[in-house]
Amino acid sequence: VKSRMEATGGLVSTPKALPYFVALSQILGLTVVAVTGAWLGLYRGGLAWESSLQFNVHPLCMVIGMVFLQGDALLVYRVFRNETKRTTKILHGLLHIFALIIALVGLVAVFDYHSKMNYADLYSLHSWCGLLIFILYFAQWLLGFSFFLFPGASFSLRNQYRPQHIFFGATLFVLSVGTTLLGIKEALLLGLSKKYSMFQPEGILANVLGLLLICFAVVVLYILTREGWVRPPRAEEQALSMDFKTLTEGDSPGSQ
Amino acid sequence: VKSRMEATGGLVSTPKALPYFVALSQILGLTVVAVTGAWLGLYRGGLAWESSLQFNVHPLCMVIGMVFLQGDALLVYRVFRNETKRTTKILHGLLHIFALIIALVGLVAVFDYHSKMNYADLYSLHSWCGLLIFILYFAQWLLGFSFFLFPGASFSLRNQYRPQHIFFGATLFVLSVGTTLLGIKEALLLGLSKKYSMFQPEGILANVLGLLLICFAVVVLYILTREGWVRPPRAEEQALSMDFKTLTEGDSPGSQ
Repeated sequence: VKSRMEATGGLVSTPKALPYFVALSQILGLTVVAVTGAWLGLYRGGLAWESSLQFNVHPLCMVIGMVFLQGDALLVYRVFRNETKRTTKILHGLLHIFALIIALVGLVAVFDYHSKMNYADLYSLHSWCGLLIFILYFAQWLLGFSFFLFPGASFSLRNQYRPQHIFFGATLFVLSVGTTLLGIKEALLLGLSKKYSMFQPEGILANVLGLLLICFAVVVLYILTREGWVRPPRAEEQALSMDFKTLTEGDSPGSQ
Repeated sequence: VKSRMEATGGLVSTPKALPYFVALSQILGLTVVAVTGAWLGLYRGGLAWESSLQFNVHPLCMVIGMVFLQGDALLVYRVFRNETKRTTKILHGLLHIFALIIALVGLVAVFDYHSKMNYADLYSLHSWCGLLIFILYFAQWLLGFSFFLFPGASFSLRNQYRPQHIFFGATLFVLSVGTTLLGIKEALLLGLSKKYSMFQPEGILANVLGLLLICFAVVVLYILTREGWVRPPRAEEQALSMDFKTLTEGDSPGSQ
């Protein structure tokens, strides 16, 4: 195992296998978005902001926002290894904002569709999980912004909050993927009903989509949790961290 | 942050908050099992190995085996901090065996019920995920046994495999909980059908069960991923690890 601090000409080295896993995650993520689009196009009549097609905006937006973009926002700290920490942070925050906005469009689509059709809202486990996660995701973004981008928070406060932010960020990502699976299941059981058990092409396509979603989540989490793949602190961050360590004997700020 | 190695009279210290989180996890885990039982008893006619009641053996066994016992097996290394590593390993392996056997009974129940009722097998996303996870869980157990309990594997091989074992163990636990949620959703949509959207007590109880399952999984993963809560190596393991470190400059075997 090579040292994480190893620097060549000012640049930090990238672990050998990391680019392949990142490429795999992006292939899986894009495939997930494409298969969702194909499902809605082939078997659900496509997209529109009117009639029953308005519902279809919901799954597509949630998959793009809460799955693909949210997942990629988590990967930013593994992929951008030579940019300043500030640049990486801003990119991380921006991707999460895009995810939030797209997910919000998806939520408006389903509530608007329900109200036009006089369907009940928020009765299912999918809807309970979905709304709860969206609210917590927004709260996590606000907390993250206040602690890490807003200049007010102290160094030690940031260090205390960082592991919590990482844990709850990864948790919300996993829960988002899980809620998407519940949504697929709901769409199949309500839409196909008894035909679901007859191995219809739509059922099989949507099941495959479910497995692809799981693969995307597993690859993203694998990349996030490899200890040696954490973004190493740059020289100046390293120096700062050493000063801080001498002062407090706490953990290094780059180590999480 | 106190040092993990701090020893008092030969015993390692337990992080202050850990016992409370472990207690919370056990309260949630037992509540999940109880609420599953209550659901099946109150709304699904109870348990039996005959008639349509045979189906009910499936959810109860899966929740006890693949959720509660699997979760507790992961916690063994955080809870038993003063036992030898060998004792802890054996307990970890035993809990996983119990989980496997109970889950197998749950699988036999549903396949037997389907065949008696002439229902199709393995068409749903729930069933695809469930069978895949059960097979991978069994493979993970076999690999874990060969590497860590069977005396053959070398020290360095164990160290290489350990992070993979931990990652895939946690992943299979999360996927098991996710598959349980898909199962709840399937049972509600097939059993309640349109009444699900009328806020029937059964639907609300099962939704609450889903949220409790998520809480159990989150608390277990929180305990597992706190860096300071990892079981510290005992004095003799520590000495061995130091020798090994000098030889290879690799990672400490107790650090994961």
